[in-house]
Amino acid sequence: MHTLVLLRHGQSTWNLENRFTGWTDVGLTNAGVKEAHLAAKLLQDDGYSFDICYTSVLKRAIKTLWIVMEDMDLMWLPVQRTWRLNERHYGALQGLNKAETAREHSEEQVHIWRRSYDVPPPALEPSDPRFPGSDPRYKNLSDTELPRTESLKLTIERTLPYWFETIVPGIQAGKRVLICAHGNSLRGLVKHLDRVSDEDIPGLNIPTGIPLVYKLDANLRPIESFYLGDQEEISKAQAAVASQGKA
Amino acid sequence: MHTLVLLRHGQSTWNLENRFTGWTDVGLTNAGVKEAHLAAKLLQDDGYSFDICYTSVLKRAIKTLWIVMEDMDLMWLPVQRTWRLNERHYGALQGLNKAETAREHSEEQVHIWRRSYDVPPPALEPSDPRFPGSDPRYKNLSDTELPRTESLKLTIERTLPYWFETIVPGIQAGKRVLICAHGNSLRGLVKHLDRVSDEDIPGLNIPTGIPLVYKLDANLRPIESFYLGDQEEISKAQAAVASQGKA
Repeated sequence: MHTLVLLRHGQSTWNLENRFTGWTDVGLTNAGVKEAHLAAKLLQDDGYSFDICYTSVLKRAIKTLWIVMEDMDLMWLPVQRTWRLNERHYGALQGLNKAETAREHSEEQVHIWRRSYDVPPPALEPSDPRFPGSDPRYKNLSDTELPRTESLKLTIERTLPYWFETIVPGIQAGKRVLICAHGNSLRGLVKHLDRVSDEDIPGLNIPTGIPLVYKLDANLRPIESFYLGDQEEISKAQAAVASQGKA
Repeated sequence: MHTLVLLRHGQSTWNLENRFTGWTDVGLTNAGVKEAHLAAKLLQDDGYSFDICYTSVLKRAIKTLWIVMEDMDLMWLPVQRTWRLNERHYGALQGLNKAETAREHSEEQVHIWRRSYDVPPPALEPSDPRFPGSDPRYKNLSDTELPRTESLKLTIERTLPYWFETIVPGIQAGKRVLICAHGNSLRGLVKHLDRVSDEDIPGLNIPTGIPLVYKLDANLRPIESFYLGDQEEISKAQAAVASQGKA
């Protein structure tokens, strides 16, 4: 049996400002830092440990991981960063306030962009300063890999190759894996593991800062999965994520 | 021309207590944290940036690196950790106070252990809790790789293969490299780069928390090397390191 833990980063400054963040590299708030410490405590209290960690190239996920590693006295673990675990790219909505955008484009339209499976928000122009092609961390991406916008479907399609090619071989070699990433890249992993339908996955809300444990069989099929910690708190956290983007 | 930066971690809790640390995984003091922030500022003020970072599997070096990465807004950089960049293993002296050890074994004997090139301190028994063979971070090391004690010579002999096999190919591929490590593993790199003799290398003191910049030619031979920052402060820091281990 294999153990895999998924962890969504804690509150970022733009979560707090209710802005579409996507690939914008904003830091954690103090509340987000606290969430990371609590995640570490939940993992440690239940005796979890790891052999390797994966994260995105965005600091809100990396910082969350660093706090967990430091609190668990596991700073020596190897860490692999990849753009494939980044948050969904929100295109021309990145930086806009979610409630304002709802007033401007209608709540229905924002709901479609946020909660449809395959409708991407308006795309960025390559000349836009928000286009990732000018950021050195993405300089090795091909033109087709560099997103100008992403639906949830496109996000999952660029996340899963990393799962199959890099993370799965490690798990199969017996490594205990911690993945610290974002709401939509983690949705991709959960969709694959739990065989969630295209229709249902946009409604699945992964709460921030709460370790999600998968016990996998030899074929990496889930035997069980559960969140660590107080179940009432988890339900509240899920509801809070779901209510974002209302005008 | 290639740029390489070496950085020795800031003050650790056992530096402060004047104890032989070696592979003991102790954290930074507040002063050590401050040194790391200052190192980041020196690098940033002079416009340095990096493509990849290397460090040991010991938290005082990793934390120093993390602070530099965070302050420079480079948390997304790949980081490779390796036991080959660890501090020299101090054998049965690990944990002992340097001044007390000097009183017990004579100042000359401690001077030989600290400042000879090839005399290792007394070895640990494999049953000793300080023996690294029981630490999961070293589980992939072979019996011959697991040290029970190390002279400076032995430290350099296990550090340099990593330089040649892993770091050099990256530099030759055009990567700007930051290595955040320890007094003796960094001495190994400096000895190799500057062709320092076996006799002279024990007397070369690398100050903590001060970036040491190498400009290398196409054959990775140094064109020049220099410490960033105030030269008087650097001399003081070097003298402070040299004076440790006096009774």
